Amino acid sequence: MKCHVFLVSDSTGITAERLAQSLLSQFHEVSFDIRTLRYIDTLEKVTQVCQQIDQVALHSSIKPIVIGTLVDGRLRARLQAANAHVLDIMGAFLTPLEEILGCQATPSVGLTHGQGEQDTYKQRMDAVTYALLHDDGGVQSHYERADLILVGVSRSGKTPTSVYLAMQYGLYVANYPLVEEDLASGELPGVLRPHTNKLFALTILPERLHTIREERRHGSEYASLAQCQHEVRQAEALFRRQRLPICDVSRLSVEEIATRALQQLGIPTRALHP
Amino acid sequence: MKCHVFLVSDSTGITAERLAQSLLSQFHEVSFDIRTLRYIDTLEKVTQVCQQIDQVALHSSIKPIVIGTLVDGRLRARLQAANAHVLDIMGAFLTPLEEILGCQATPSVGLTHGQGEQDTYKQRMDAVTYALLHDDGGVQSHYERADLILVGVSRSGKTPTSVYLAMQYGLYVANYPLVEEDLASGELPGVLRPHTNKLFALTILPERLHTIREERRHGSEYASLAQCQHEVRQAEALFRRQRLPICDVSRLSVEEIATRALQQLGIPTRALHP
Repeated sequence: MKCHVFLVSDSTGITAERLAQSLLSQFHEVSFDIRTLRYIDTLEKVTQVCQQIDQVALHSSIKPIVIGTLVDGRLRARLQAANAHVLDIMGAFLTPLEEILGCQATPSVGLTHGQGEQDTYKQRMDAVTYALLHDDGGVQSHYERADLILVGVSRSGKTPTSVYLAMQYGLYVANYPLVEEDLASGELPGVLRPHTNKLFALTILPERLHTIREERRHGSEYASLAQCQHEVRQAEALFRRQRLPICDVSRLSVEEIATRALQQLGIPTRALHP
Repeated sequence: MKCHVFLVSDSTGITAERLAQSLLSQFHEVSFDIRTLRYIDTLEKVTQVCQQIDQVALHSSIKPIVIGTLVDGRLRARLQAANAHVLDIMGAFLTPLEEILGCQATPSVGLTHGQGEQDTYKQRMDAVTYALLHDDGGVQSHYERADLILVGVSRSGKTPTSVYLAMQYGLYVANYPLVEEDLASGELPGVLRPHTNKLFALTILPERLHTIREERRHGSEYASLAQCQHEVRQAEALFRRQRLPICDVSRLSVEEIATRALQQLGIPTRALHP
């Protein structure tokens, strides 16, 4: 069974995409064809969207599904006219929230940003700059500024996790790759020792690491299964000796690794996206 | 008025965070104290969460709000017992979806990933690696592989936008900083010319660029308002001559810049997060 899904947003569509993924992934038997329609912020654009949906509905065996995150009530009402099952996310929750809070929701599509958001933006950009500068052990001089430091062998997922935490939460995240000398010594590198309370250790199944490294440097000693097994064994022994919080990333997404780090190190966060 | 809000998720909590931000930002008069509780995936953990919420409720003038994205019906039912206004996101939409689709939702919290998600993961990681390699004009040899190339003067937001698009959508995004020579020549650099259909130009108010650069290199010629005005004027003239799609990033978030690029270049996407 194939079902067309339209995500209709007056802004970036990212909230709608996340929510749709959470909801639709519960239906394993259905195959979904998902389209995101962004910046639908006038009655004219909603009307065009409805026409587009109606066209698809004409040629579908089952009615399309629309997941809408429009904040303006007039646009939401217009969207209901589409020949589709319309799930109106804002409508469903703004009314109960108005009742709970005893005040009216004031639509603000979030196109113009106030000073608060400018600060937020700056914080995230500074954090991304920091993550890139301190990627792969690059600059090791500002670890005292770090909110957390990821450690692990090469290609264990440190870089994307650092960048994700910077982007999403404005956190300062450094990462340090454990190299042969570090592993052979069996001790934490000197630069990390003053910061053990900020360390979050990533480990990975040697087989998975082998696959990842093979794609990068096919047939190399670096990518060989034996080398991967050797490095992972030494790294895990080191992490355990130092009693670092350890996360096996083999079957986790970047978001999962990132949020586990926050949880295990007890780092409070405020989501910073607009 | 201050209101405590608990976001309760059986996974990363990122969907709940985004949705909460969309909903709560419509209530300008209320100040929200938001806590995300992640990986709440057993009855025991939900019970602990309820106790935590009840404690806060005891000392609050208004009842806390709970935004839950739990997929397991038993956990959702338990969460309803908290002394709070519970908005059950999954509950609200899974039942209508079951009816529409004519089949049952099968809770899958998304902790274990199948092969499809492994591929997705790999695609995003490869894209992030590509974005970092091709950041700031670094490696200019694989532009034919790029899905899009951001151009703009230094500090106009190219790097975070590239990384965001890679992370969120698995797209290959390069970025090229226009330097003095490029601007003086009034032409696109030779390496970009075969790829004009992939270019997305970022511009920015000179005053804002001045502020951003001042923080990086205080008092420098590079950061001076005159220099910023000069560069932006030349860059915009170049973009117009080349008829590139132009985006003024001065008041936009990274997500907004990224999704506008997708929209204007007509790049189809599939959200890749878990």
